[in-house]
Amino acid sequence: MRTTVGIIGGGPAGLLLARLLHRAGVDCVVLECRTREHVEQRQRAGMLEQGTVDALREAGAADRLTAEGLVHQGIELRFDRERHHIDFPALTGGRTVTIYAQTEIVKDLVALQLADGPPLLFEAEALAIEKPESGSPVVRFLHEGREQTLACDWVVGCDGFHGISRDALPAGVGRSYAHDYPYSWLGILAEVPPSCEELIYARGERGFALHSMRSASVSRLYLQVPNGTDPDDWPDDRIWDELAARFAIDADWTLHRGPVTAKSVTTMRSYVHEPMRHGRLLLAGDAAHIVPPTGAKGLNLAVSDVRVLARALTELHRTGSTRLLDRYSEVCLQRVWQATRFSYDMTKMLHAQPNGDAFEHRMQLSRLRRITASRHAAAELAANYTGLPLGT
Amino acid sequence: MRTTVGIIGGGPAGLLLARLLHRAGVDCVVLECRTREHVEQRQRAGMLEQGTVDALREAGAADRLTAEGLVHQGIELRFDRERHHIDFPALTGGRTVTIYAQTEIVKDLVALQLADGPPLLFEAEALAIEKPESGSPVVRFLHEGREQTLACDWVVGCDGFHGISRDALPAGVGRSYAHDYPYSWLGILAEVPPSCEELIYARGERGFALHSMRSASVSRLYLQVPNGTDPDDWPDDRIWDELAARFAIDADWTLHRGPVTAKSVTTMRSYVHEPMRHGRLLLAGDAAHIVPPTGAKGLNLAVSDVRVLARALTELHRTGSTRLLDRYSEVCLQRVWQATRFSYDMTKMLHAQPNGDAFEHRMQLSRLRRITASRHAAAELAANYTGLPLGT
Repeated sequence: MRTTVGIIGGGPAGLLLARLLHRAGVDCVVLECRTREHVEQRQRAGMLEQGTVDALREAGAADRLTAEGLVHQGIELRFDRERHHIDFPALTGGRTVTIYAQTEIVKDLVALQLADGPPLLFEAEALAIEKPESGSPVVRFLHEGREQTLACDWVVGCDGFHGISRDALPAGVGRSYAHDYPYSWLGILAEVPPSCEELIYARGERGFALHSMRSASVSRLYLQVPNGTDPDDWPDDRIWDELAARFAIDADWTLHRGPVTAKSVTTMRSYVHEPMRHGRLLLAGDAAHIVPPTGAKGLNLAVSDVRVLARALTELHRTGSTRLLDRYSEVCLQRVWQATRFSYDMTKMLHAQPNGDAFEHRMQLSRLRRITASRHAAAELAANYTGLPLGT
Repeated sequence: MRTTVGIIGGGPAGLLLARLLHRAGVDCVVLECRTREHVEQRQRAGMLEQGTVDALREAGAADRLTAEGLVHQGIELRFDRERHHIDFPALTGGRTVTIYAQTEIVKDLVALQLADGPPLLFEAEALAIEKPESGSPVVRFLHEGREQTLACDWVVGCDGFHGISRDALPAGVGRSYAHDYPYSWLGILAEVPPSCEELIYARGERGFALHSMRSASVSRLYLQVPNGTDPDDWPDDRIWDELAARFAIDADWTLHRGPVTAKSVTTMRSYVHEPMRHGRLLLAGDAAHIVPPTGAKGLNLAVSDVRVLARALTELHRTGSTRLLDRYSEVCLQRVWQATRFSYDMTKMLHAQPNGDAFEHRMQLSRLRRITASRHAAAELAANYTGLPLGT
């Protein structure tokens, strides 16, 4: 098989890139190692920056998002038994965020792709990327029981943190930066209407809790737990009790409980690999960088990478110029580092430090107090949360 | 001896409080354990917030400050061989800071006090504060070779971090919070005009450096050094070479060298004791809290404590109401915690972490980049640096 752009990975990054390239008239093929059912059920993020919504509209993939997405005007910070609304439109000149689950984005993009898009192969496991430095890299992959090759002009690795693309970089090419956090998130999906209209970020001595949602009838909730926590140690009642305690504020507020349909523990890590390009291999999204989920930046960063990349590959297709492609890594990394900083700061501000001392605790509270007292501090949070501009 | 307000410590906090009380008609006595010469030569801070300048004006102690103080419109952040001006008036609605050395403030206040003020006793060493919970606390002190007593309505501890006042709190009263930093500052005074018009905060892989000044002819410079550094290991040439390397930016900028007249190493600590009142004993300034010098907040916090306290004691004198005194600790601590947070953040952003990993280094750079890219982030720095409002 031969194509212009070989895309490894059929998550939101790879699928959106394929869609944007298809609309620009650029050939591509997407290889996804898992089944369609698996990809459409993977629980991931659900908070979209305005720019992410715009990109999905531009790709013609936003009909259901527009109809079903929940537009949020802000978030709530909860600490010291007080609640504080951070008003995004007022602080950012009108910007909002939208709740729409990643699973739904993937379903929408898969349906479009299978209807009229370039090839999207499920159960196509990329094995190796050969000759990324050459003018004609090749992806070897396993599909329908046999090894095949995809000859490309460009290969884009959208195969996530554990994918093969980053490993295809020769040893010593570039540098990586990592930070691990001393806590994890126990997350649940529950068949119950959310107990709030916007996300609640709650900080307390018992640890952090986040009340999010997937739709008007499905809640998504998280608890800070120690690393190494076994979800089986957390029966549903224990989870609800702990959530209720961490969100407790006054008699007027109640946490609604309902059937738990999924439960899992996620570790927290920051990671950046730079540069995001080597020869004709380009990395996008989690393949190049990951953030802890506290700032809701993972999916949004993947989408912004893909927007920059689609623009660059489209310019190459139309004019033959690699000007934008040559700046791809630098442009993306500016935004990546700022989102990494924001995710780190949100994480450090909201989580109880294991063995944390009393001074650190007061620093966290002072930061939260300052955000609620200073328009500039609140506007900084709002600007980062709703998404910094795409670089150029 | 008997007085209304017994003030322990004749640094800027104690002297300014005495001055403000004197002007309001409230009796007081200041006990200072060292000599006048010693107090007037102690090298300390030199960067005054607008509110500090206002307080000295209000106290009638700003004639020389007004004539000789250097008004600064901002600071410079230097990193990655770039320089960035943070424009305070533009970011804060017109606020500035003023360079005027603490030694000069003390000289001005001592002269006023000795001319027409209430008693100021040098070489008067406070030994104990007795019965702070009672209506008539007593300060025992050593002066002119014999032990004496000062009976007071109120005792104010302005005797710094190592003074006796905080130790006079009964065990178990209140709580303290502390953080030590893994680096120190090697500071010099040099008889050379500053190489810059405003302070330079320089961050680099070799460590932090600060270019400050005391006047148009005296420079004050600092180098981040490891804890435990012996100043004798740093001959003048080594200091100048290291400063030049850390400030290096381009051929257009030169560090002027001159005779070094003082050299010392200071450790860095954050510390807060709360509450700042116990019965009729009130703590102000370093006696209650200290910050690392990076945010230039130590002297300014002491002055803001004293402003709140003078207002409260004046109200008591005029109306008999303890309403403001009863809120003294709470009002001060709000501002203290915010200044502690700001000093901590400035310190962490600018110093090279010993054994720091590459990720932390990139976080520091991302923070600095954000301040230079975002008006809100820059305005937050400017608001904190020029001084948050006095609480009420």
